[in-house]
Amino acid sequence: MSELRRDPISGRWVIISVERGKRPTDFVSPSQRKRGGFCPFCPGNEYTTPSEIIAFRQSETKPNTPGWTLRVMPNKFPALQISGDLKKTGVGMFDKMNGIGAHEVIVETPDHMLSLATMPGKAVEDALWAYYQRLSDLRKDRRIKYVLLFKNEGDAAGASLEHSHTQLIALPIVPKLVLEETDASKRYYDLKERCIFCDVINQELESRIRVVYENDCYVALAPFAPRAPFETWILPKKHEPVFSPPDSSFTLLADILQTVLKQIDRILDVPPYNFVIHTSPFADEINDYYHWHIEIVPKLTKIAGFEWGSGFYINPTPPEESAKFMREAKI
Amino acid sequence: MSELRRDPISGRWVIISVERGKRPTDFVSPSQRKRGGFCPFCPGNEYTTPSEIIAFRQSETKPNTPGWTLRVMPNKFPALQISGDLKKTGVGMFDKMNGIGAHEVIVETPDHMLSLATMPGKAVEDALWAYYQRLSDLRKDRRIKYVLLFKNEGDAAGASLEHSHTQLIALPIVPKLVLEETDASKRYYDLKERCIFCDVINQELESRIRVVYENDCYVALAPFAPRAPFETWILPKKHEPVFSPPDSSFTLLADILQTVLKQIDRILDVPPYNFVIHTSPFADEINDYYHWHIEIVPKLTKIAGFEWGSGFYINPTPPEESAKFMREAKI
Repeated sequence: MSELRRDPISGRWVIISVERGKRPTDFVSPSQRKRGGFCPFCPGNEYTTPSEIIAFRQSETKPNTPGWTLRVMPNKFPALQISGDLKKTGVGMFDKMNGIGAHEVIVETPDHMLSLATMPGKAVEDALWAYYQRLSDLRKDRRIKYVLLFKNEGDAAGASLEHSHTQLIALPIVPKLVLEETDASKRYYDLKERCIFCDVINQELESRIRVVYENDCYVALAPFAPRAPFETWILPKKHEPVFSPPDSSFTLLADILQTVLKQIDRILDVPPYNFVIHTSPFADEINDYYHWHIEIVPKLTKIAGFEWGSGFYINPTPPEESAKFMREAKI
Repeated sequence: MSELRRDPISGRWVIISVERGKRPTDFVSPSQRKRGGFCPFCPGNEYTTPSEIIAFRQSETKPNTPGWTLRVMPNKFPALQISGDLKKTGVGMFDKMNGIGAHEVIVETPDHMLSLATMPGKAVEDALWAYYQRLSDLRKDRRIKYVLLFKNEGDAAGASLEHSHTQLIALPIVPKLVLEETDASKRYYDLKERCIFCDVINQELESRIRVVYENDCYVALAPFAPRAPFETWILPKKHEPVFSPPDSSFTLLADILQTVLKQIDRILDVPPYNFVIHTSPFADEINDYYHWHIEIVPKLTKIAGFEWGSGFYINPTPPEESAKFMREAKI
């Protein structure tokens, strides 16, 4: 089983994933992901993946057979596992726990050639519903403190399979970057009685120079201090701490997500990218200070020694410029 | 001029580097670094770089001509600039300052084919002396709060030129990851009256399972919770907050740095890597709680959405294994 370990100095947790264990020679000639070869996510190959957890499929089709439009299953090489008790132990001055959690894959379309940018809008909506269902289900597990939904699109962004999919990792602790955000927004709320994200949104909607796209419910922004060129955030305009559908509909969220991804594809010629969903930790979901959002980062530059060693990023593209390029993209 | 901007939520600073400004098309077909082509760091091509700041060279040779063994000059495309007053301003709720600082390049050898692992030990010592001299000089500038020394070796680690070199960025603020380390070690010291790094070193030297190499003054460790496979730290055994030569000699530091780099090259077939030097911030250099060190990270895995979005790392190689492979490497 994997282990979670805490660096005693930085407080950062890492997953030592022995199931995915690698010897030095495994790194020497990094195997290329197979393109055009066998795809475990294509219909007809369901037998090669772990059993599906949920699927949206035609009535009268059986689980783990074709006939689906969306499938969710455990990752075949999970970083964390759902079965067992959570055990926290000390090793001298070090802290660790066993690798309890979940690692799932959401395949958003049976069509190998489509991406979130190119699939029908309805399929993007369904993907958002699947995210929501999995969050709602995992929330019931008291061992789980946080669920991170993220997408690696393209080899350079860390995708090991080409067929479009999103991943979910359920964790027994709240990750560092989320804690930093919740702590900072709590402090801001204590000071101002306002949500810091709401304040950012209001200021951005007034100046408009970093607004990428908006619809009735959501706004897409190039943040004031982006880590990377064309980094884009999507936020609900109305205060909402938890990833959830307003008025029981994901139509407008699917619209803005797909629009932004189309803009990025158009301007940057279908680049690799990552996105993550940041939502409130389960322990404190109903609050006035935190505001859920999606962070999208095209993978255009390399994280080098300076970024790695400082947590400081050098970004060659001002967000005012990237927002303008995206606004004016013909999609 | 570049700008430093602070993200209001995470508190993270970024450098928006307009001198290196990029339009979308610059990202579409990333230009390959030229190998075997013209090298501005090779002897005879000194006229193509900014004027040298210091150099170790044969007597009677002139600055910016051949005859050197080591050269330090400003980066031709600096992320920050040394001239001007530091101006801190607010933009609504956002914070920024102008890009005051320094960005320098240390070319450790005139020989295009050598690396820190393969150059003579004396050249590694000289590189360490050059780091030390630049730190000592920049410390006098009251606008500078921190100097980060780092190396990008290989294209995948972010090096834009093949000829071996180290970079230095002098900053008007202390970077986030360094602040996290100094804050945490201060808290530990308040609690225990001991340096947390000293405690880690003592525990590791006792168990020995994560010790990679040691000599009289230094120890190389695979940290308990490494972010990446084969991450290795080098620390002075005796408490020392600031990067500096014990007994006016860098011989033993050059020995351990070169040994570790040789082990990494041997085991991982000359991989790309980054290293950074973490030393105490200038404002509080003489202290009992912080312990300077070098962090070396081979670039074997990709930083994907999960890491980006969580600050949580998945590492497929336990440090006990990587330390054993490195200890047993025939170099």
